[in-house]
Amino acid sequence: MKNESYSLQESLIYAHKMAQLTKAIWKRVEKDWQEWIKPYNLNINEHHILLIAYHLDGVSISEVSKLGIMHVSTAFNFSKKLETRGLVRLSKKVNDKRSTYVELTDEGRELFIETMQEMDPEKNSIVSASLSLRSEGGNFPEFEELETIVEELYGADYIDILNRSLSRVKRKY
Amino acid sequence: MKNESYSLQESLIYAHKMAQLTKAIWKRVEKDWQEWIKPYNLNINEHHILLIAYHLDGVSISEVSKLGIMHVSTAFNFSKKLETRGLVRLSKKVNDKRSTYVELTDEGRELFIETMQEMDPEKNSIVSASLSLRSEGGNFPEFEELETIVEELYGADYIDILNRSLSRVKRKY
Repeated sequence: MKNESYSLQESLIYAHKMAQLTKAIWKRVEKDWQEWIKPYNLNINEHHILLIAYHLDGVSISEVSKLGIMHVSTAFNFSKKLETRGLVRLSKKVNDKRSTYVELTDEGRELFIETMQEMDPEKNSIVSASLSLRSEGGNFPEFEELETIVEELYGADYIDILNRSLSRVKRKY
Repeated sequence: MKNESYSLQESLIYAHKMAQLTKAIWKRVEKDWQEWIKPYNLNINEHHILLIAYHLDGVSISEVSKLGIMHVSTAFNFSKKLETRGLVRLSKKVNDKRSTYVELTDEGRELFIETMQEMDPEKNSIVSASLSLRSEGGNFPEFEELETIVEELYGADYIDILNRSLSRVKRKY
């Protein structure tokens, strides 16, 4: 696969384009996310940890770090802060003292559900900016190629964790 | 277009998936970029400003801010730092005192070209992670839907500036 020939120029153009497009979209996602959770006195990392713990029962800090794409220390430190606020419980397993597991408390679960209920798709720039594509195709775009690239970068288990959390969204909050 | 009906659940899933995918890719782009330009004592914002000024003659700070997706103050402050290092020249136009324009000096141009010549696609994770898609399709993916979303978010002139810079990549460094 790696022996497939491609020109330097072709790869520079592709890399530059992908950098611009993903930066553009991610920065807007980040901005929307901050606006959305501001009333709850949470930052994006903290909310992301709540989200991951909500969707994945008995998740470890290293899984949070992987799915949240944050350093293990970031995942750990923000989980600690959430624990101080009584929103999560951190624990170790008897047979595995090395890993720390994150679990929502009832209060954490309620707060998370509240944030999700307050999420207004009309205020979500990415949803709004995708409506013309949705009209054309009948659905929001699938972005299978992006998924393939993310799978190559982060491994099949990243996509697996993502799909597990997406399938939970399919149930009601 | 906005009246098109879509379910809350559908939009939540879509927003969550896009957040995860674009964060995953952008964070890796960012990491590669940092590695690549580390030897030149530049940060990503500074290199991005050099790149934009290289590709767009007589670019204004507000265009740098727009294409670089950084605050105007960030664009201005890093341009100032680059000016102190003799890599860019900042100027005003006689007929427009409000805007500041950024132009590469010879030294800035040489340094930028050097960084581009040192860019090794084999070390670029996004390029590597896209090779299987390239084998299947004969080309790197086009991501037209991403482009449509970015156009909706940032306007047609963002895509226009992007295409102008991409067409410059098509020439030799």
